[in-house]
Amino acid sequence: MFKNILIIGFGLIGSSIARGALKAKITNQILVYDKDKTVKNRLKKAKFKKVQYFSSVSEAIKNANFIVICTPVLQYEGIFKYLKNNNNITTIVTDVGSTKSNIVKLYNDSYKNDFKFVPSHPIAGTEKSGLEHGFAELFHDRYNIICPVGNKKNKSITIVKDFWRKLGMQVDIMSAKKHDKILGLTSHLPHLIAYSLVLTAMKKEKTMKSSIVKYSAGGFRDFTRITENNPNFWRDVFLVNQNIIHDFSKSFISEMKKLNLEMKQKKSSLLLSKLEKTRKVRKSIIKAKMAGKFIPND
Amino acid sequence: MFKNILIIGFGLIGSSIARGALKAKITNQILVYDKDKTVKNRLKKAKFKKVQYFSSVSEAIKNANFIVICTPVLQYEGIFKYLKNNNNITTIVTDVGSTKSNIVKLYNDSYKNDFKFVPSHPIAGTEKSGLEHGFAELFHDRYNIICPVGNKKNKSITIVKDFWRKLGMQVDIMSAKKHDKILGLTSHLPHLIAYSLVLTAMKKEKTMKSSIVKYSAGGFRDFTRITENNPNFWRDVFLVNQNIIHDFSKSFISEMKKLNLEMKQKKSSLLLSKLEKTRKVRKSIIKAKMAGKFIPND
Repeated sequence: MFKNILIIGFGLIGSSIARGALKAKITNQILVYDKDKTVKNRLKKAKFKKVQYFSSVSEAIKNANFIVICTPVLQYEGIFKYLKNNNNITTIVTDVGSTKSNIVKLYNDSYKNDFKFVPSHPIAGTEKSGLEHGFAELFHDRYNIICPVGNKKNKSITIVKDFWRKLGMQVDIMSAKKHDKILGLTSHLPHLIAYSLVLTAMKKEKTMKSSIVKYSAGGFRDFTRITENNPNFWRDVFLVNQNIIHDFSKSFISEMKKLNLEMKQKKSSLLLSKLEKTRKVRKSIIKAKMAGKFIPND
Repeated sequence: MFKNILIIGFGLIGSSIARGALKAKITNQILVYDKDKTVKNRLKKAKFKKVQYFSSVSEAIKNANFIVICTPVLQYEGIFKYLKNNNNITTIVTDVGSTKSNIVKLYNDSYKNDFKFVPSHPIAGTEKSGLEHGFAELFHDRYNIICPVGNKKNKSITIVKDFWRKLGMQVDIMSAKKHDKILGLTSHLPHLIAYSLVLTAMKKEKTMKSSIVKYSAGGFRDFTRITENNPNFWRDVFLVNQNIIHDFSKSFISEMKKLNLEMKQKKSSLLLSKLEKTRKVRKSIIKAKMAGKFIPND
């Protein structure tokens, strides 16, 4: 139980944490800072209860009991500076960023004596952005990866672990390096692919573009779903994790070229066995309850 | 109103047509042929009403009043031979195949005097296969593309158009060549990309593979959804439409390489503007009611 929780960056993820934390009674008071000034009015419109909005991040930090950073990852450095100058050394800070090596390095290099930091990454989301689309159950049955900045058994880690568990998550601990590699493949590469496909389609002439929209139910629409995400967020991920993404892109492109060649050479049974194999991966994802449900006619 | 409708190939699409046609009262009797002999018992288990199963395709064709081919596209030649030998010249045959130039050519070259054929393609589906997963509403508000084999204004086309409209579809008419190009981009390329990504992931070492499944909610699971489809169906599409798929693959790969380079060169504002642009495509798809709804925690 925290006296209050400060959420810096109040979008889909931040607002879902707020909803989840209030619902799970981890706190009775949410403090909000967001550099987007429209958030203040939108909080009112959305009838958010037990939420206090701050227009100054230093003011918000001064009053905070537990802090979660929910901004694009390249904004951390600015926030860390405020934390250094304003925060109580005992206050625990965590985050939800999709890259970890860069922020662990930043913290260890320059801020480790200024505040307690436990980097974490809840693997959950929808295609929507904005506080209006958040919901308390977003984290239920999903995984959270914690990447310790130092000793794996310190008390702060236990507190942050417990926080995510109360929001319904399962928590894993691993190095930032391992996290960035895994997420490079499960998230960053898929997003880059989706953006590339949509950009390819956008280059077509006008009549073809309108056909793409009309007949997108054939598969294309699935790719556009993940490109609906916050562009600032993804720009930062791509810039920060580019080495790993580049390596996986290479493997993926070579796989795709191979399939194209096999199609040309009419390697019918080889193609079939490859397509059959991929179903097994899908089955594991369904078994792990990560699949979600898609309703085509909604 | 047809006396009966024969569906050759009774999987997700075939069984959804059967359900939709009975519900819309287009017919009172569905005839079924499927080369998979388990279909007979599965029809009983699924408590399908007003359905007559045939173990011989010639027998089924002899009795048919209206025919819909719902098999993978490379099986059409065998079926066309049966239609030539058994069918009444006045019976109208349509299909649901995802490639059109090849079957229009096949028909025009060798079968145009044997039966009336109106090639069509309902752009609708889910990731599931099998008659157990079909539902009458699958086609509601989706588009169907008809690719006439000859004169665009003959009576058979009107009848087939009317058939799909009664199942809830909007019908467009275009050349087979145009169809194959558009579907190459809206469906075949996305599927090839999804298969390539899953195959790339499958090559990783065991620990990484299990991490991919656990953390698939970051985006990867969306790609596995479309790889759950019938492998025979997709093998045939890839073999038949490979030239067009190859061309689009090249554009897509070059787009992806460009993004990778821009990431490396830290072209921050260029990246951001590209990611922002793609949202517009998504918005058009939502506006066209093609998006569907994804429920992450189902």
